[in-house]
Amino acid sequence: MAWTLSGVAKVLGLQLRGDDCEINGLNTLEDAGPDEISFLANVKYASYLGNTRAGAVIVDEEHADQVRRALVSKNPYQDFGRALALFARPQGSYTGISERAFIHPEASVAASCTVYPFVYVGAGAIIGERTVLFPGVYVGENSRIGERCALYPNAVLMADTVLGDGCIVHACAVLGADGFGFARTEHGIQKIPQIGSVAFGDDVEIGAGSAVDRAVLGVTRIGEGTKIDNLVQVGHNVSVGKECFLVSQVGISGSTRVGDRVTMAGQVGVAGHLRIGNDVTIGPKSGVAKDIPDGQTCGGTPCVDGRTFLRTITVMPKLPDMYKRLAALEKELNALQDLLPKERK
Amino acid sequence: MAWTLSGVAKVLGLQLRGDDCEINGLNTLEDAGPDEISFLANVKYASYLGNTRAGAVIVDEEHADQVRRALVSKNPYQDFGRALALFARPQGSYTGISERAFIHPEASVAASCTVYPFVYVGAGAIIGERTVLFPGVYVGENSRIGERCALYPNAVLMADTVLGDGCIVHACAVLGADGFGFARTEHGIQKIPQIGSVAFGDDVEIGAGSAVDRAVLGVTRIGEGTKIDNLVQVGHNVSVGKECFLVSQVGISGSTRVGDRVTMAGQVGVAGHLRIGNDVTIGPKSGVAKDIPDGQTCGGTPCVDGRTFLRTITVMPKLPDMYKRLAALEKELNALQDLLPKERK
Amino acid sequence: MAWTLSGVAKVLGLQLRGDDCEINGLNTLEDAGPDEISFLANVKYASYLGNTRAGAVIVDEEHADQVRRALVSKNPYQDFGRALALFARPQGSYTGISERAFIHPEASVAASCTVYPFVYVGAGAIIGERTVLFPGVYVGENSRIGERCALYPNAVLMADTVLGDGCIVHACAVLGADGFGFARTEHGIQKIPQIGSVAFGDDVEIGAGSAVDRAVLGVTRIGEGTKIDNLVQVGHNVSVGKECFLVSQVGISGSTRVGDRVTMAGQVGVAGHLRIGNDVTIGPKSGVAKDIPDGQTCGGTPCVDGRTFLRTITVMPKLPDMYKRLAALEKELNALQDLLPKERK
Repeated sequence: MAWTLSGVAKVLGLQLRGDDCEINGLNTLEDAGPDEISFLANVKYASYLGNTRAGAVIVDEEHADQVRRALVSKNPYQDFGRALALFARPQGSYTGISERAFIHPEASVAASCTVYPFVYVGAGAIIGERTVLFPGVYVGENSRIGERCALYPNAVLMADTVLGDGCIVHACAVLGADGFGFARTEHGIQKIPQIGSVAFGDDVEIGAGSAVDRAVLGVTRIGEGTKIDNLVQVGHNVSVGKECFLVSQVGISGSTRVGDRVTMAGQVGVAGHLRIGNDVTIGPKSGVAKDIPDGQTCGGTPCVDGRTFLRTITVMPKLPDMYKRLAALEKELNALQDLLPKERK
Repeated sequence: MAWTLSGVAKVLGLQLRGDDCEINGLNTLEDAGPDEISFLANVKYASYLGNTRAGAVIVDEEHADQVRRALVSKNPYQDFGRALALFARPQGSYTGISERAFIHPEASVAASCTVYPFVYVGAGAIIGERTVLFPGVYVGENSRIGERCALYPNAVLMADTVLGDGCIVHACAVLGADGFGFARTEHGIQKIPQIGSVAFGDDVEIGAGSAVDRAVLGVTRIGEGTKIDNLVQVGHNVSVGKECFLVSQVGISGSTRVGDRVTMAGQVGVAGHLRIGNDVTIGPKSGVAKDIPDGQTCGGTPCVDGRTFLRTITVMPKLPDMYKRLAALEKELNALQDLLPKERK
Repeated sequence: MAWTLSGVAKVLGLQLRGDDCEINGLNTLEDAGPDEISFLANVKYASYLGNTRAGAVIVDEEHADQVRRALVSKNPYQDFGRALALFARPQGSYTGISERAFIHPEASVAASCTVYPFVYVGAGAIIGERTVLFPGVYVGENSRIGERCALYPNAVLMADTVLGDGCIVHACAVLGADGFGFARTEHGIQKIPQIGSVAFGDDVEIGAGSAVDRAVLGVTRIGEGTKIDNLVQVGHNVSVGKECFLVSQVGISGSTRVGDRVTMAGQVGVAGHLRIGNDVTIGPKSGVAKDIPDGQTCGGTPCVDGRTFLRTITVMPKLPDMYKRLAALEKELNALQDLLPKERK
C-alpha cells in the first residue's frame, strides 16, 4: 500500500508544502518514521513538531512552517481520519457464506454478504447487501439488518432487532435483551414481559460489550449517526436522537428521551423518564436526575449547569478548611457578644 | 393472537367498564391504536389519558372514568405485566437438540430441552427439563442447571455453576469467571486460584454482559427471585439475598453480604467485606463504604442515610456562594473587632 | 487429591505446629471441616479462630497459638494462594484440537494447544505452546498469542492483537475493538479508522466482559503482570505499566499513560491524555481529571490527594448544618453591627 505524498495530498484535497516522498503509513508524531504521515490535532502535542521524524504532518496553517513537509488542513483530525482510511485494512479476509454457519431456511441473506462459521441467523431474519457477520454472531428471528453493516464476533441481536445501513456492532454487544421490568407483588417478584424491540438508524456504531434493551412495548430507538462506545447500557424504551456520542460506561435508564447531537462523557448515569434536549453536553461521571434543556453543558452528581458545577468542584477541596473557619468565626463572634452590653443578649 | 377485551378481562380477573372490542396487542398510551390495550402505572403520564386512541386502558379506580373502556386494577403495572404475557412470543422457535451442538458424552441433558447449534456442554453437566440453550452458550464441567431456564446467546457458565429452576441468563453474561484475587509478593504478583463456584437460587434473572465471579473458596450466592440488570459486577464470595434488584452497572466487591429485598439503583458501587441489611434501598451512583442496617434508604458517595444525603445535595450547589459569604463574614468580623477595645484582642 | 498436612507443610515450606492429619481441601474459617485447611489473612476475621473446625490454619506467628494446628506463615494470604494451587482443577478437561473449530490454513497453532469446538482462528494468527482456546473464542488475523495462555469462552481478539506468555483472557472480554474516534464535520460524523493494535505483556489477566481498544495508530499496551478485573474499559492508545491492578468497572480514556504498580479501585474513571505516575493508588469511584505524580494515594471526583479527600468526605455530611450555621452567623453579625456606632457603617 505504498503512496506518494503528493498522491495522498491530491486524494485528500490538501495543499502539500515541501517536496514529494514515499508514504507507507501513518503514525503519531513521536513514533512516525520518514515514510509515514503524522498529524497535529491537539495543540497539547505541538512541542513534538520540532523533533518528529515523520515524512509529513497534517497541520493547520498556523503550524505548517514548523515541519519539513506539511499537508495543510483546516481540520487536521478529520483529514487525518481520511488519510487513515487510505491505509486501513478490513478486520478479516473471509468471503462467502460459510456452510458452518446456521442460516434458517426462512431467513434471507443477500448473496453479497459475508457470513463466517458459527453464525446463527434465525427464521424470518433479513440481511442486506454486503453485510458481514463474524463468528459467533446471533441474529434473532425477524431481525432486519441493512446493507454494509459489520457485526463483529459474538455480537447478539435478539429477535425483531432492526439495524439501518452502515451500522457497526462490536464484539459481544447485545441488542434487544429484555428490559429490566418487574413488579413486586404479594407473591414475590413478577416479570413484566418485554415484547417490544430495538431499532437503530443508519450509520449507528455500538461498542464492545454494550447493551441496548428491547422495549417493554414499542421500540427502543437509536438515531441515525449516533456512536456508542464500549460497555454502555441503554434501558428499555429509551430514545436517543441523531449524531449523539455516548462514551464508555454511560448508563441511560428506561424511557428517557435524548435529543440530537448530545454528548455524554464516560460513566455518566441518567435516570429514567427524563428528557435531555438537543446539543446537550454532560461531563464525565455526572448523575442526571432532572430534565436538561437544549444546548446546556452540565456536570456533577446531581448534574447542574456547567458554571455551577465548575465553581462547586473548585470550592469542594476547601470544604474542610471552611469547616474550621466557620467554627472559628462562631467562637470569635461569641467572644464579641460577651463583650457587649448584656441587654443585647 | 386476537382476543376479545372481555376475554382479556376474564383471564386477568379485572372488571371491564365499557363495551367489548377486539384486542390484538398492547401499547403505550401515546402509541396505542383502537385494537390495543394500554395502561397507566405512573401518574406522570395521566395527561395522556384524554388523548389516547387505545381500545382500553388498565387503570386504577381513580382514573377509570377518564377512558372509554377501562380494565380496573389495584396494581395496573402488575396487571399490565400479566396482560403482556398473553401477547408475548418466545425469543426463538428452534426445537430439539441440535447435532451441531457439542454435548459431552458424560453430560446429562433432559430430552425436553432445546439446544441450539454451537452450544457447548461440558463433562458432568446436568441440565433440567425444558431448559433452552441458545447458540454460543457454554456450560462448564459439572454445572447443574434447573428446569425451565433460558440461557441466551453466548452466555457463559464456567465449571461448577449451579442454577435453580426458572432462571434467565441474558446474552454474554458470565457466571463463574475467576474472582479478582492476587497477592503482591517480592517476586511479583501471585494469582490466588479461585476454586469455589457460583450458585443461583430459583427464578434468578441476570442481564446481558453481567458477571458473577466464582468464589475463591465456597460459593458466590444469588438468592431466589433476585433480578440483576445488564453490566452488573458481583465479586467473589459475595452473597446476595432473595428478591433483590441490582440495577445496571452496579458493582459489589468481594465477600460482601447483601440481605433480602435490597434494591441497588444504577451504577452503585459497594466495597468488599460489608454487610448490607434486609430491605435496604441504595440510590443511584452511590458509593457504599460501610455496613448498612436493615430498612435503610441511603445515597451518596460515601453513602449516608437518605435524609442527610438529600439535604447535602440540596446545599451542594450553594457551596461556592457559601465560600464567598464565609470570607465576607470573616472580613466584617475583623472590622468589628478593630472597633472594639484593644484589651479584647 | 488427598494430602497429609505434613505433606502440604513441606511443599509450601511452612512450619507445622500440631500433629499430622489428612487434608482434602481448603475452606473459610467459618465453613472448613476437620479435613480442610483454612487461613487468616484479614485480622477482621480473627475472632473466627476460636470456633473454626478447620483441620489446620495458615496464620502468622502472632495467631499461631490460637488454633490446634497451625501452618505458620509470614504472608498467610500468599501461602493460602499457594495451597489453593495444590487443590485447583483446570476449567475443562478437553484435549487436542477439535475438528469442529475453524483454523485458517494460514494460521499456526502449536500441536500442544487445546482448541475446543467453535473456535475461530484467522489467517496469519500464531498460537504458542500449551495455550487453551475455549469454545466461541475468536482469534483475529495476524494475532500472536504466547505460550500457556488461557482464552475462556467467547473471548474475542480482533486482528493483530498480541498476547505474551501466560496471559488469561476471561469470557466475553474483547481486545482490539475499534477505539472511539470520530470527527464532527459539516457532513455529519466521520469515523476515524483505527488501524493500530493491542499488545499485552506476559502474565496479564483480563476479566470477563472487559474491553481494551485497538490504537488509532500504534499500540494500546498493557504491561507485564498487570491484572484487569471484569467490565473494565481501556481506551485506544492507552499505555498501562507493569503489575497494575485495574479493579472492576474502571474506565481509562484514550491516550492516557499509567505507570507501574498502580492500583485503581472499582469504578474509577480516568480522563484522556493524562499521565498517572508509578505506585499510585486511586480510591474507588474516583474521577481523575489531572496528572497524578508518582506514589500518590488519592480519591474523589475530581480526584485529589488522599488526605484532602478524607477530610472532605468527613465534612461533607455536615454541609447542611454548616449552611444553617453560616446563615445564623450572618444574622448575629448583622445584629451586632446594628449595636455599634453608626459611623462604622
